[in-house]
Amino acid sequence: MDTIKIWKVVNTDSQQMDDVVAREAPLTLFVNDIELVTLLCTPADFKDLAVGFLYSEGVISGVDDLARISVNASKGIVWITLGDGVAFSEEEYHRGRAVTSGCARGQTFAHLADKLALPPLDTQHRFSIDQIYGLVKQLQTGGDGGSLYERTGCVHVAMLFDGDKILVFREDIGRHNAVDKVVGYSVIHGIDCSDKAIMVTGRLSSEMVMKAARLGIPLVVSRTAPTSSALKIADEAGMTLVGFARGRRMNIYSHPYRILENNNINE
Amino acid sequence: MDTIKIWKVVNTDSQQMDDVVAREAPLTLFVNDIELVTLLCTPADFKDLAVGFLYSEGVISGVDDLARISVNASKGIVWITLGDGVAFSEEEYHRGRAVTSGCARGQTFAHLADKLALPPLDTQHRFSIDQIYGLVKQLQTGGDGGSLYERTGCVHVAMLFDGDKILVFREDIGRHNAVDKVVGYSVIHGIDCSDKAIMVTGRLSSEMVMKAARLGIPLVVSRTAPTSSALKIADEAGMTLVGFARGRRMNIYSHPYRILENNNINE
Repeated sequence: MDTIKIWKVVNTDSQQMDDVVAREAPLTLFVNDIELVTLLCTPADFKDLAVGFLYSEGVISGVDDLARISVNASKGIVWITLGDGVAFSEEEYHRGRAVTSGCARGQTFAHLADKLALPPLDTQHRFSIDQIYGLVKQLQTGGDGGSLYERTGCVHVAMLFDGDKILVFREDIGRHNAVDKVVGYSVIHGIDCSDKAIMVTGRLSSEMVMKAARLGIPLVVSRTAPTSSALKIADEAGMTLVGFARGRRMNIYSHPYRILENNNINE
Repeated sequence: MDTIKIWKVVNTDSQQMDDVVAREAPLTLFVNDIELVTLLCTPADFKDLAVGFLYSEGVISGVDDLARISVNASKGIVWITLGDGVAFSEEEYHRGRAVTSGCARGQTFAHLADKLALPPLDTQHRFSIDQIYGLVKQLQTGGDGGSLYERTGCVHVAMLFDGDKILVFREDIGRHNAVDKVVGYSVIHGIDCSDKAIMVTGRLSSEMVMKAARLGIPLVVSRTAPTSSALKIADEAGMTLVGFARGRRMNIYSHPYRILENNNINE
């Protein structure tokens, strides 16, 4: 966080004062000595971000694919060496990336799941309404009152939730980065996500739901809205999607059985 | 916009009802018959988006670089043929892109401006406080009450403003896409942006400010916050950055002379 001078204008009065803004910095990721990508991000949790990015993009399938990780936080560089058996070429990555980005191209989830090596969601785990309200509440308190989210209004949050407490709380100026930081943490620590939920502040586009699907997370909660493609993927994958979760309200978009009692589902 | 069934939960009561979500669709962009990128976007204004993307990425410098544009809206494909003298190779694009994305890497604006062929901002044009409040007001009315922004809560808006009226109002599920649609429209129609402002709903990261700088727009207004890198670029480029513009309030982050009278600047 940086402290800066701003001019605050209310009606026609202006006043100069101090304010804080979120820091934005580049993270350059080298894979097997190839410079792969430079992400503009909140300069924290570089290791989580790098590993989560590679996992979400399908370059690695898990922590076992990583031979060595080296982080230079002050320079914003992460070097990752893949294990001996892990195939990687820069050209294929760029080709593959276009396909991944276009994953909503009218393809079914089954087809996508095949292409991106997505595991079928193998859990009937449920959450109570109160557990979700508890999760929403922890968005505000998760940073212990000192989060960038509250102080700058300029970052997105992603949190992994076990029904009771927040296991990982990550912030980033980019909503994809925030989720990738949670993904990376989960991959590095081998967390079983089949009974976890992820909550994000950002909109749920198809790519956000794909990231959660790849981790096998059955419940995705957002403060804001999903897109039509996100709903389609969640529906086919058997994931429960919740949007506009604020205070003691939410909208459930798919597979409500995971939250609602049976007798409420078909009202 | 798609109509869907949702389960609305308030406290512990749930009710099934109809709701609307923003549609998300892929746009695949071919340049000189090379498949360059697939963007996930709101399926409208494909031509603006394609041209704006190429301009923001530095592939084209203006409408004169375009020989032919062909759009298949139902398939989500845009084919662009560049003019004879316009250099383009896929490899250089991918290499160049990493550099562009990492543009905040401690480089000065002068250096970046050089690299990305950014024109120096050549305008002392000013806006009044009331003009900006008028702009903010038009965010709500710009879509004539039928905008996706108001109805889905799931899209970003970008608008080009001449001090009096909105010249272009564009929406997209991606904040970069929304701005690129305005950029593309401006490039296609040869709009002189030196006395215009752009307003966006999304956060101002460095890339958003770079897009505006490339068009020579002197004033960038956002409903939300800028990052530290966005401020740095705006400061060096001589652009006025306004954040948290809501109702009759705003924060001015750089070059306040463009909005405030001299005697208010150093209070």
